[in-house]
Amino acid sequence: MQATIMYGPGDVRVENVPDSTIIEPSDALVVVTRAAICGSDLWPYRGYAQFREAGNRMGHEFIGVVADVGSEVRNLKKGDLVAAPFATSDGTCVFCQAGLHTSCVHGTFWDLIDLEGGQAEAVRVPLADGTLYPLPVDQDDALMPALLTLTDVMATGHHAAVTAQVKPGKIAAVVGDGAVGLCGVIAAKRLGAEQIILLGRQPDRLALGKTFGATDIVTERGEEAVAKVRQLTGGYGVHSVLECVGTDLSMQTSLSIARPGGAIGRVGVPHDVTIPAAAPTFFNNLTISGGPAPSRAYFDELIPDVLNGRIQPGRVFDFVGDISQVPDGYRAMDERRAIKAMITF
Amino acid sequence: MQATIMYGPGDVRVENVPDSTIIEPSDALVVVTRAAICGSDLWPYRGYAQFREAGNRMGHEFIGVVADVGSEVRNLKKGDLVAAPFATSDGTCVFCQAGLHTSCVHGTFWDLIDLEGGQAEAVRVPLADGTLYPLPVDQDDALMPALLTLTDVMATGHHAAVTAQVKPGKIAAVVGDGAVGLCGVIAAKRLGAEQIILLGRQPDRLALGKTFGATDIVTERGEEAVAKVRQLTGGYGVHSVLECVGTDLSMQTSLSIARPGGAIGRVGVPHDVTIPAAAPTFFNNLTISGGPAPSRAYFDELIPDVLNGRIQPGRVFDFVGDISQVPDGYRAMDERRAIKAMITF
Repeated sequence: MQATIMYGPGDVRVENVPDSTIIEPSDALVVVTRAAICGSDLWPYRGYAQFREAGNRMGHEFIGVVADVGSEVRNLKKGDLVAAPFATSDGTCVFCQAGLHTSCVHGTFWDLIDLEGGQAEAVRVPLADGTLYPLPVDQDDALMPALLTLTDVMATGHHAAVTAQVKPGKIAAVVGDGAVGLCGVIAAKRLGAEQIILLGRQPDRLALGKTFGATDIVTERGEEAVAKVRQLTGGYGVHSVLECVGTDLSMQTSLSIARPGGAIGRVGVPHDVTIPAAAPTFFNNLTISGGPAPSRAYFDELIPDVLNGRIQPGRVFDFVGDISQVPDGYRAMDERRAIKAMITF
Repeated sequence: MQATIMYGPGDVRVENVPDSTIIEPSDALVVVTRAAICGSDLWPYRGYAQFREAGNRMGHEFIGVVADVGSEVRNLKKGDLVAAPFATSDGTCVFCQAGLHTSCVHGTFWDLIDLEGGQAEAVRVPLADGTLYPLPVDQDDALMPALLTLTDVMATGHHAAVTAQVKPGKIAAVVGDGAVGLCGVIAAKRLGAEQIILLGRQPDRLALGKTFGATDIVTERGEEAVAKVRQLTGGYGVHSVLECVGTDLSMQTSLSIARPGGAIGRVGVPHDVTIPAAAPTFFNNLTISGGPAPSRAYFDELIPDVLNGRIQPGRVFDFVGDISQVPDGYRAMDERRAIKAMITF
């Protein structure tokens, strides 16, 4: 079968690899029908990661059809259309029961699983009963992009909004105009934010953000961005900040645009980020929350709004190609020519 | 009148100063009947503060009787028995309305107000209508200690519990066995925590903590404390951590004993504290919240339980003296011979 392997910064290839098969009795084998390239896949692509000698299998967002199940799998059968969140989870441990599947005591992140990845023709899925979400629809090309975002970016934007405590009538800011930030705009609007300020610099993304519900756009950075947000909020700052980048600059901006008592929901994996302990965090009673989104927990809540068209996160995919075009997808995203790439099979 | 002035580390004196009087039309003049020495007063006492040339007026926790009001004061009259929270507030701004009086756009902390302080015979109280809380009782010696704690330590312990998201049936840990930590135990129990682990080292304080509701005591520090808390919680850690110290060690311990998805409510003013941005905070989806407690906002909620005796935070006062004994009170607290000192007039 064909799979995506990254050997080093900028060096991503699609290669023939041994077919994935069931190994553990709790595994399922999924034939992939849609996969995505994630903004976080760009961290290793840009050199912010270590590489295995055999290369890193890539991809942690996919939808597919169950082709086989291990002897212990109870909730899935051959032919089921399923979505795979970006982390595996047993569905039964104390953290899964609490809705925090990314801290499952038995689960892990796809990127830590050797020899499996979603940007491939097939995937062996560990802990299949707890990990895979059976989709309540048939194959439907029009719905697939939006459903695919629930495996990561839309769930992550939603997690940012939830942990930033977005509430009806409040003011939210979304820091970052990547696919997650754009989904954060969708989530903030869905949770009732009255004013949604999107901070970013890419005109096409900002335009999409406006159609998703952003009421104000701030293209400045650093101190100038902070001044602009204050000006837009009566001098007070915002109630909720969705930090969707993960750099130190985005974090400092997020902390500075939150009003006293405000909350920052951060979902950008932090890279060399500093969180000051005293001002403004302590003295302004800021709440800093967030982390890897428990996508598996959010399907039930988000799927109805995808199916009825109230939210359309699938619009973040502006690059579509087959598996041979995966390297083009990485390049397009790296060069910011594409917001997000979807791979069809 | 007599007032308390600190001139440098360890150098606190009670001196005759000009009588406080009404200056602004929104002022009230309060004749103090009870005052307290705060754990945070020990920071300058131990050298962690700058000193004004004329010395620092001390004291931000007091109860007294209104002796005079400025022309704009509407809600108070001569003879009212009032409690003063540790910050002034106008009661009308956006943050006061949101219940975050410590971020009032016109208010400030007593420690930043020149020539006024609660460890004195009288105090000019700015923004009196918004700041002072009229007590719904007459002078009653038995109730005064508990009511006095509402100006700071009990409100602060409550704030730690609220921001640490203590909920019925959950497990809380209280880091620090000072007066705030002990009030944190009261607050955690009051909010329904099922298991309350108190981390501290002073036997008399830990004993009082047990009577307040602590179910487990951990006297270890650092890594050993973390191991002990994990052992007490099935290996998972606690849902809520009330960080009531403000040192880096207490913060790192707090972050390490929180289970994934847990919350840290910090109320110890941070001194040289580092908050790591990635592990464990981000990857464990920890929520870090807290700051200066909006004591003014909590009176309404806490006073009924003080009056009916359900909570007895006044028991933290184990040193009682008149104003001439203020320096003794500082020494006793500094040497950990006293948990907290109350000054009577």
